[in-house]
Amino acid sequence: MTTAAGPRPYNFSAGPAAMPEAVLQRAAAEMLDWQGSGMSVMEMSHRGKEFGAICAQAEADIRTLLAVPANFNVLFMQGGGLGENAIVPMNLSRGASVDFVITGSWSAKSQKEAQRYCQANIVASNADSRHTRLPDPASWQLTRDASYVHLCSNETIHGVEFQELPDLAALGSDAPLVIDFSSHVASRPVDWRRVGLAFGGAQKNLGPAGLTIVIVRDDLLGHALDICPSAFNYKTVADNKSMYNTPPTWGIYIAGLTFQWLLQQTEGGLSGIAAMEQRNLAKSRRLYDFIDASAFYENKVAVDCRSRMNVPFFLKDESRNEVFLAGAREAGLLQLKGHKSVGGMRASIYNAMPLAGVQALVSYMREFERSHA
Amino acid sequence: MTTAAGPRPYNFSAGPAAMPEAVLQRAAAEMLDWQGSGMSVMEMSHRGKEFGAICAQAEADIRTLLAVPANFNVLFMQGGGLGENAIVPMNLSRGASVDFVITGSWSAKSQKEAQRYCQANIVASNADSRHTRLPDPASWQLTRDASYVHLCSNETIHGVEFQELPDLAALGSDAPLVIDFSSHVASRPVDWRRVGLAFGGAQKNLGPAGLTIVIVRDDLLGHALDICPSAFNYKTVADNKSMYNTPPTWGIYIAGLTFQWLLQQTEGGLSGIAAMEQRNLAKSRRLYDFIDASAFYENKVAVDCRSRMNVPFFLKDESRNEVFLAGAREAGLLQLKGHKSVGGMRASIYNAMPLAGVQALVSYMREFERSHA
Repeated sequence: MTTAAGPRPYNFSAGPAAMPEAVLQRAAAEMLDWQGSGMSVMEMSHRGKEFGAICAQAEADIRTLLAVPANFNVLFMQGGGLGENAIVPMNLSRGASVDFVITGSWSAKSQKEAQRYCQANIVASNADSRHTRLPDPASWQLTRDASYVHLCSNETIHGVEFQELPDLAALGSDAPLVIDFSSHVASRPVDWRRVGLAFGGAQKNLGPAGLTIVIVRDDLLGHALDICPSAFNYKTVADNKSMYNTPPTWGIYIAGLTFQWLLQQTEGGLSGIAAMEQRNLAKSRRLYDFIDASAFYENKVAVDCRSRMNVPFFLKDESRNEVFLAGAREAGLLQLKGHKSVGGMRASIYNAMPLAGVQALVSYMREFERSHA
Repeated sequence: MTTAAGPRPYNFSAGPAAMPEAVLQRAAAEMLDWQGSGMSVMEMSHRGKEFGAICAQAEADIRTLLAVPANFNVLFMQGGGLGENAIVPMNLSRGASVDFVITGSWSAKSQKEAQRYCQANIVASNADSRHTRLPDPASWQLTRDASYVHLCSNETIHGVEFQELPDLAALGSDAPLVIDFSSHVASRPVDWRRVGLAFGGAQKNLGPAGLTIVIVRDDLLGHALDICPSAFNYKTVADNKSMYNTPPTWGIYIAGLTFQWLLQQTEGGLSGIAAMEQRNLAKSRRLYDFIDASAFYENKVAVDCRSRMNVPFFLKDESRNEVFLAGAREAGLLQLKGHKSVGGMRASIYNAMPLAGVQALVSYMREFERSHA
């Protein structure tokens, strides 16, 4: 992909993150006049027919893309994942007991925030492995009568991902499962039979920061605590089709363009999410295989728990980190520095990252190893 | 202002609303590559140096523009005005008593929502005038020891605006004043000596929907209720310079471009907000003078309470409403339909609406009157 100014660099940011170039080009082209309306999307009343059409199409497309069942509501909200850490228990906890599975920074933050609203039990944790392997569901100490069970299905910072969602019913629980899927939404299918609510900030795989997607089963609406703000009450948002307050209209528009782009993708006879899953498997295998075969680099996550989206890795000689990062920038490979809580490097390879970007990263890493080993 | 496709229509939407064309053009031009970074602003980590610079400049510019004193914090948040209706009392009420001045739909909604968190007293109301005149501050029944006094300084739906903020100290109260300035922020100066906190959604006068601006005095931080979500705790947001959770980065960027545009505006030897105030006075006078001189149209708001931003008006023969609106669209005058709770028409003439747009509206109204009277 190139622009008049030359090829765009590859951006490995964990979020906000790289977006499909086709989406950016369309947004630029439509900036002053969306489809003959005479308005930018940012200038449209959210209650007008133009934005109404944009929003309805975005909802229809994400339903198709993620195969969302009819008894689930798609809500376009604000506040991001950290906002949802309060909003979910305000809506679903009923002030009672909630179970948390701790697998990294994000699930830990969710549990901590929920303590304001309910009894937030830690029923499993991978802290003893420094968040490098997922706790086996058979070992979870689920609470009788928990209002829900919360987990983060992909930990952006630690790079661990559930390859399969737990079947709570098989574990003897009838609590709904809540997943924070911020950093791998739309990278693979969701098994909705096992989920009651999924939430995610859009800024990793779907669009710009400031849009939160919540997908919630009908029967979980209508149980909010009295202190839940109206603007964050799922039932109020659902009843008003995400228009109780002015929604983040630009974010919905860009996410909608991204949904359309995703629906158009094909790979090996597959399309949409199935195609993206194949690509994401190929991309992540390429990077993990190279790291595992190298004596110079290292990934510490257990093989069967590794994220397809966020690949933290280390130079075994960390004194070379700054040189590595400076050379990467020079080579057009941006934002590879690891999260401060983990250190080292992190390559986030979301849907918008092409295989060519991963290949460019591997080539750079190989060359860096050759000249510094 | 024209584009390759011809002149842009004039957009009178109450919000999201018209934006300066120069801002839209800049946003389109920078979409794929912000200032040589190789990234769209939407693709930047909020913690990187590029977005850090954008955010710091936006804060510096709004401080200059609105002459914000050093002991006030500028917060970039999410959730809009309706979100703030809960967030303000969660942060400032201390669960005690709060006074509300009811002047239209927005202040009424604020009072209703606040009841979840505190005793929300109605100390004055203009409901008996159907929200067409503002209650005289001398008549307000202020509560002793109220945590704060809330008012909406410009009612978007009813078109009433405080021409001067009340001096609560002179009224015998030492409570801080909270103003919802969503729909007239940056259209006139703010007298910060009389204000403790001001909040507004950006989507009327500052940028896209999904960004909320909160400007709050130092001493009002740190008193949040335990049930206040961390992402909406003003002290947490201030301590983290609006980066506790991922902020709405695109909204901050566009608002920043708008601040720069505002700072560059000049009018009769004045610049910035002073220039905008002169323009807004001229625009609103042009429209009100025409309506008042007409026997065909009517504005019902008391002359000294009229909003410079939102001008609701009526055709005396309302059977012609649909024909009026269809003809307006034909003439390139968009989104003039009044709010459903008031009826009739509404012309929102925010900063981005040039005098030429108001003149075009007046010309259309005059011609419509001539051919239908």
